[in-house]
Amino acid sequence: MTEHSLTKEIIEVLRKAPSVALFSHVSPDGDCLGSMLALGLALETMGKKVAFFNPDRVPEALTFLPGSDRIQQLLPNPLPEVLVFTDCTDLKRVTLTPGNLGDSIVVNIDHHISNQRFGKFNWVDDKASACAEVCLTLIKQLGVLMDKDIATNLYTGIVTDSGCFQYSNTTANTHRLTAELIETGLDLTMIHHHLFDQKPLAQVKLLQAALNTLELYADGQLAVMTLTLEDFRQSGAVQEHSEGLVNHARSIQGVEAAVLLKEVGPQEIKGGFRSNLWFDVNKVAAQFGGGGHKRAAGCTMKVSLTEAKKQVIRAIEEGLIVGRAH
Amino acid sequence: MTEHSLTKEIIEVLRKAPSVALFSHVSPDGDCLGSMLALGLALETMGKKVAFFNPDRVPEALTFLPGSDRIQQLLPNPLPEVLVFTDCTDLKRVTLTPGNLGDSIVVNIDHHISNQRFGKFNWVDDKASACAEVCLTLIKQLGVLMDKDIATNLYTGIVTDSGCFQYSNTTANTHRLTAELIETGLDLTMIHHHLFDQKPLAQVKLLQAALNTLELYADGQLAVMTLTLEDFRQSGAVQEHSEGLVNHARSIQGVEAAVLLKEVGPQEIKGGFRSNLWFDVNKVAAQFGGGGHKRAAGCTMKVSLTEAKKQVIRAIEEGLIVGRAH
Repeated sequence: MTEHSLTKEIIEVLRKAPSVALFSHVSPDGDCLGSMLALGLALETMGKKVAFFNPDRVPEALTFLPGSDRIQQLLPNPLPEVLVFTDCTDLKRVTLTPGNLGDSIVVNIDHHISNQRFGKFNWVDDKASACAEVCLTLIKQLGVLMDKDIATNLYTGIVTDSGCFQYSNTTANTHRLTAELIETGLDLTMIHHHLFDQKPLAQVKLLQAALNTLELYADGQLAVMTLTLEDFRQSGAVQEHSEGLVNHARSIQGVEAAVLLKEVGPQEIKGGFRSNLWFDVNKVAAQFGGGGHKRAAGCTMKVSLTEAKKQVIRAIEEGLIVGRAH
Repeated sequence: MTEHSLTKEIIEVLRKAPSVALFSHVSPDGDCLGSMLALGLALETMGKKVAFFNPDRVPEALTFLPGSDRIQQLLPNPLPEVLVFTDCTDLKRVTLTPGNLGDSIVVNIDHHISNQRFGKFNWVDDKASACAEVCLTLIKQLGVLMDKDIATNLYTGIVTDSGCFQYSNTTANTHRLTAELIETGLDLTMIHHHLFDQKPLAQVKLLQAALNTLELYADGQLAVMTLTLEDFRQSGAVQEHSEGLVNHARSIQGVEAAVLLKEVGPQEIKGGFRSNLWFDVNKVAAQFGGGGHKRAAGCTMKVSLTEAKKQVIRAIEEGLIVGRAH
């Protein structure tokens, strides 16, 4: 199917459907919720009955998204004829199986290269920084007039999944689409406040604990931080609060590789590795039975924190020396 | 002079000039340097002799800007017929007086509302997020083909002055212009690495010291951090390394007002105040002989750090109670 005829078919399916249910993935983020809500609100302006589904509760920081109070954790019963999935690589990400979907027509809209094409119609654009980019294109083609509520959802999808336009998935098109959204009269101050100024205190305390352990090795090319179970307990933090902390080490001048080692149980350490320009942290993670990408990888080690730290520093120091020699 | 005829005149002046000197302000940032270099490189492609001036040295993090190695700290002698100032509110910001400029024609390109219109031609667009936005418009009107070097300079100006498209000065036009720049083939990963991943270790250590003092008051609405002279000494940090630290306190969930108190001398405390949505920190700063804006203000207090903290907390707690009552 050509891209053009695919779009045409999806539009026809959606135009015809009197009611549509929309689905987004577990551990919901700004892009899956923003995409789902934007598309649902757009379909509503076309006179359709719309239901929203997510297996989890909406994170507090995203409850400002227009329509988020209508998201259900129960499947609509009966299921409407058309089901739309946004930002979901496969049905497992929505805690569903094909058996849950009956005879409904499945439309799968995503931007992950790993998408499993589980729908009857699969619009997967891996060049898009966010699923919201794909949804915006679809909404325009549906002929829906963009309003502020729809735009707030789409903008949130783009700004969160593109890392505030800093990730390498950001393109000229990302910025052009964003310009269109801003022109609907978006309240950027409000949106940014909700997205970026709502850090849980526990997360800031965890950063404090991590920074207190910061050490540099290999002439400042390697930065290492650690977190003990006690740090999590004292700060009242949960595992997800440590996400992104390693970047505080990675962004130090002169640092090429950064590591955060977290004690998640007795003799159980999770390692998070990042690099900046050339060092392959995927290779290091692989040495410890983990994996990922060249610039971001992780592993789990069944040793003490002290031992994990020693082993990881040795492995990375060796890699840095070998790498530099080339 | 209408905007259109002003642009036309500036273009005519620049087209005619065989050589042009460009100027940017003290304590140079990404926008003043990026604007100056972009415009200068564009004029060079038109066959002009170009000289760049800045009173200070280029900060290391900005030495990746194409052309930055050509910036001089001495005035060109003789001065060319046309002088272009970018991002400079007045001549003092360039450590110059009118006497330094001889009979040269001064073109003043800026986006600050407070610009002193010191040129013969003054193109001041206070709706632009960055001076680089104005320069991009000018370069397009000069008919110069945008290349990657020019675009790298302009993008840096926009991304730094708009706070990665997060500040309220960001408009639809900011994103549209950015899209045009990215289409020249910008290396966004390289630019972002230079701009955002080069934090001096001293700055990170200062953050650590500040976080270790973090305390919440007024039911979590007020966050306070302090830095002693000893903290600066131990971390090897200078005053400018503390810039922006207060935002780590401001962005905590539930916090409306945030304070960083820095000991800058014996019995001499600098207070930095920020607020999120409604609290007027300007009023608080004014109580201590300082000032600023509603959401960002500062003051200097001639007391001990302990005393300053006590006084500031009391003043803000009172303001929070009064504000809430309304």
